[in-house]
Amino acid sequence: MRFGLQCRRCGKQKPFEPAKTTCACGGSLQVAYDLERAGRTLRTDALHGRVHSMWRYAELLPVERSAHIVSLGEGWTPLLALEERARDLGLGALQVKCEERNPTGSFKARGASAALSVARAHGLRRIAINSNGNAASAAAAYAARAGMEAFAFLPADCPGAIVAECVQYGARTCLVDGLIHDAGRLIREGRDEQGWHFIGTLQEHGRAEGKKTMGLELAEQLGWRLPDVIVYPTGGGSGIIGMWRAFAQLRALGLIDGDLPRMVSVQAQGCAPIADAMRSGGNYVPLRGVVTSPPTGMRVPLPPDGEQLLAILRASGGTGVSVSEAEIADGARELGRCGVSASPEGAATWAGLLRLVDSGWIAPGERVVLFNTSHSGKYLPWRMEGVPCVKNYAAWRKLDQESAR
Amino acid sequence: MRFGLQCRRCGKQKPFEPAKTTCACGGSLQVAYDLERAGRTLRTDALHGRVHSMWRYAELLPVERSAHIVSLGEGWTPLLALEERARDLGLGALQVKCEERNPTGSFKARGASAALSVARAHGLRRIAINSNGNAASAAAAYAARAGMEAFAFLPADCPGAIVAECVQYGARTCLVDGLIHDAGRLIREGRDEQGWHFIGTLQEHGRAEGKKTMGLELAEQLGWRLPDVIVYPTGGGSGIIGMWRAFAQLRALGLIDGDLPRMVSVQAQGCAPIADAMRSGGNYVPLRGVVTSPPTGMRVPLPPDGEQLLAILRASGGTGVSVSEAEIADGARELGRCGVSASPEGAATWAGLLRLVDSGWIAPGERVVLFNTSHSGKYLPWRMEGVPCVKNYAAWRKLDQESAR
Ligand SMILES: Cc1ncc(COP(=O)(O)O)c(C=O)c1O
Ligand SMILES: Cc1ncc(COP(=O)(O)O)c(C=O)c1O
Ligand SMILES: [Zn+2]
Ligand SMILES: [Zn+2]
Repeated sequence: MRFGLQCRRCGKQKPFEPAKTTCACGGSLQVAYDLERAGRTLRTDALHGRVHSMWRYAELLPVERSAHIVSLGEGWTPLLALEERARDLGLGALQVKCEERNPTGSFKARGASAALSVARAHGLRRIAINSNGNAASAAAAYAARAGMEAFAFLPADCPGAIVAECVQYGARTCLVDGLIHDAGRLIREGRDEQGWHFIGTLQEHGRAEGKKTMGLELAEQLGWRLPDVIVYPTGGGSGIIGMWRAFAQLRALGLIDGDLPRMVSVQAQGCAPIADAMRSGGNYVPLRGVVTSPPTGMRVPLPPDGEQLLAILRASGGTGVSVSEAEIADGARELGRCGVSASPEGAATWAGLLRLVDSGWIAPGERVVLFNTSHSGKYLPWRMEGVPCVKNYAAWRKLDQESAR
Repeated sequence: MRFGLQCRRCGKQKPFEPAKTTCACGGSLQVAYDLERAGRTLRTDALHGRVHSMWRYAELLPVERSAHIVSLGEGWTPLLALEERARDLGLGALQVKCEERNPTGSFKARGASAALSVARAHGLRRIAINSNGNAASAAAAYAARAGMEAFAFLPADCPGAIVAECVQYGARTCLVDGLIHDAGRLIREGRDEQGWHFIGTLQEHGRAEGKKTMGLELAEQLGWRLPDVIVYPTGGGSGIIGMWRAFAQLRALGLIDGDLPRMVSVQAQGCAPIADAMRSGGNYVPLRGVVTSPPTGMRVPLPPDGEQLLAILRASGGTGVSVSEAEIADGARELGRCGVSASPEGAATWAGLLRLVDSGWIAPGERVVLFNTSHSGKYLPWRMEGVPCVKNYAAWRKLDQESAR
């Protein structure tokens, strides 16, 4: 086999299963590849002629047969150099990875493409997802592409444009009176009865592996020379965790060497458990207070793998920054004036950058990459009407049975 | 010189000028390339290593120096095969060219990238555009990227998301109490006083040349074997006119041979001057009646080059179809169920396809390409507040002077 599972704690290896994410020892399982075998074909010169999507890195994705790939042309997004801004800020280089250019307008397309491909390979045809929105609309699109059924559960204040996308792609869409983890609880309650394949964050292996391709791509697009600093808008942490794994694999393959980038998590004030833990120097403590930030992908009070994320930030020599809504608005305007359609998440990375340049944490001449993880159009102040809102699985089930009648 | 201008009527050649579009004889001028020279480098094998944007076809674009190129990574959009749908409809192949994947979410990015590059090459730094919306938001983004000033004039009922984009990219944005040609009149009234470089449809050469790349790309992506039928949502006609020129140039270069596709213009009932003229078999007659269709890119009652467009449709053996709002809504749902974010324009091509398959005009086994020219998110039923609306240039000027005070 090209790949299997391996426990991050005890090291034990197991055959690949889409939704097996915990080892008997309690450690978490992740996909492990036969890197020697991968390295025989994944070579810089061999990449030139490949497909212009994240599937150009097929050796590092957990799908055996290309017929199972569910693709809408995701990944291989532009890396845009902002030359004037780099000069103004005294940086060696400043680039924006334009993840808003993915299908469904966010980097979540990568995870969805991989997750739905894995599902297809394993005969799973009924998927459910909880999400702040972007992951659900991506899952809905890829489920449609694959001819599968999708069930999307979103926080009640999810931006209307994203709710509308889920509906347009034919997902059975429902709002949940609560936050992203409340929507996750609903799915867990109903999973067995509904036969749902749950593809929420860290519930299966496809999504994390798909997002990893951001790191692979970044390396290739930069000629296998990574930047000094990566600034990323963090919610559940899957983007940073994925990229970090990508870098480890590229290093094992001998495709990169030298120092890895310092990884920076940016979050919005009002829900910044990761940035707060980095600042306090302490362990990750799930946010228990009131969440006051608006509904973006950064709003994850209980990131399922906060510990691993903090460990990566620290190992990389990185940091966390929490920025205000006013700074985010300024960031959107600044990036807009560069021709980039920045979502609040992407705008937050601009705000974080300014902070870190001001404080000297980013030094003159350093090379920085920001991630604009989604498109600004997803956050228009518009509400979609006519989508039900429930509190839990029992309420959803009642609605579902009524509508079936 | 790699390129110059040539009159379509009298054949006279002239040096390239960005905004010289009419010959002394009254004929229209278009860009003519030294195709012999272009052919020396534009070869199928040479394309492999090139940039993944429309600038891979630099030999056929009117920009001399690559330093002048204003790019956000436009073009090289996915061509998505809808295999099941092709089977259901008895087609040999059915593909969607995903133009919604361009920067700013529409094919208008191609025209804007070329137009702003030409402007930069010629030292023009203050651009104005009238548009149903998408062309303006694209122009705004590329002007921002180039550090130029943009002035956008849009019909008063322009979708809010598109108005918001123009503003986000820093364009001076104003609604006009009327339709796209009324906005054009405003610019003509103010052009001299404001020193505007007017980049409305057919006002300069960049936009038409940029859009041409859709045709170049389609040929390359299909292995230099064009489809039997192309279905395109028509407004001003620049997409079809541009692709037709692309095919002529590819043929002259020996990159394609055999029959060219039958070109189909789809328009919405309530404003379908081209489809109506095709049906009646007569000449193009500017629509004088009341326009009742909603504000999409297809709503152009007075296409500036309707005659040329009709001539192309006829020469290709093509046709025109006008579809209802209900058919467009069905089309959006159908494409959504394939994972494609179809705008009303893209959805209209689906509707047109069904009509032509039903009537037998498209025969079993034929290979068809639909163009999804923009993203559905641009047409959310939301209105942007706070953008002024004027009737003419005098009113705009008054507002402008007041705001300067
Ligand atoms: C646009 C956007 N950016 C960033 C994030 C944060 O994701 P993560 O920290 O899991 O990579 C999300 C998650 O929903 C998102 O939708
Ligand atoms: C999304 C979209 N599709 C199609 C059109 C029609 O353009 P044309 O006929 O000029 O190619 C437009 C023009 O505004 C548009 O915005
Ligand atoms: Zn273990
Ligand atoms: Zn002439």
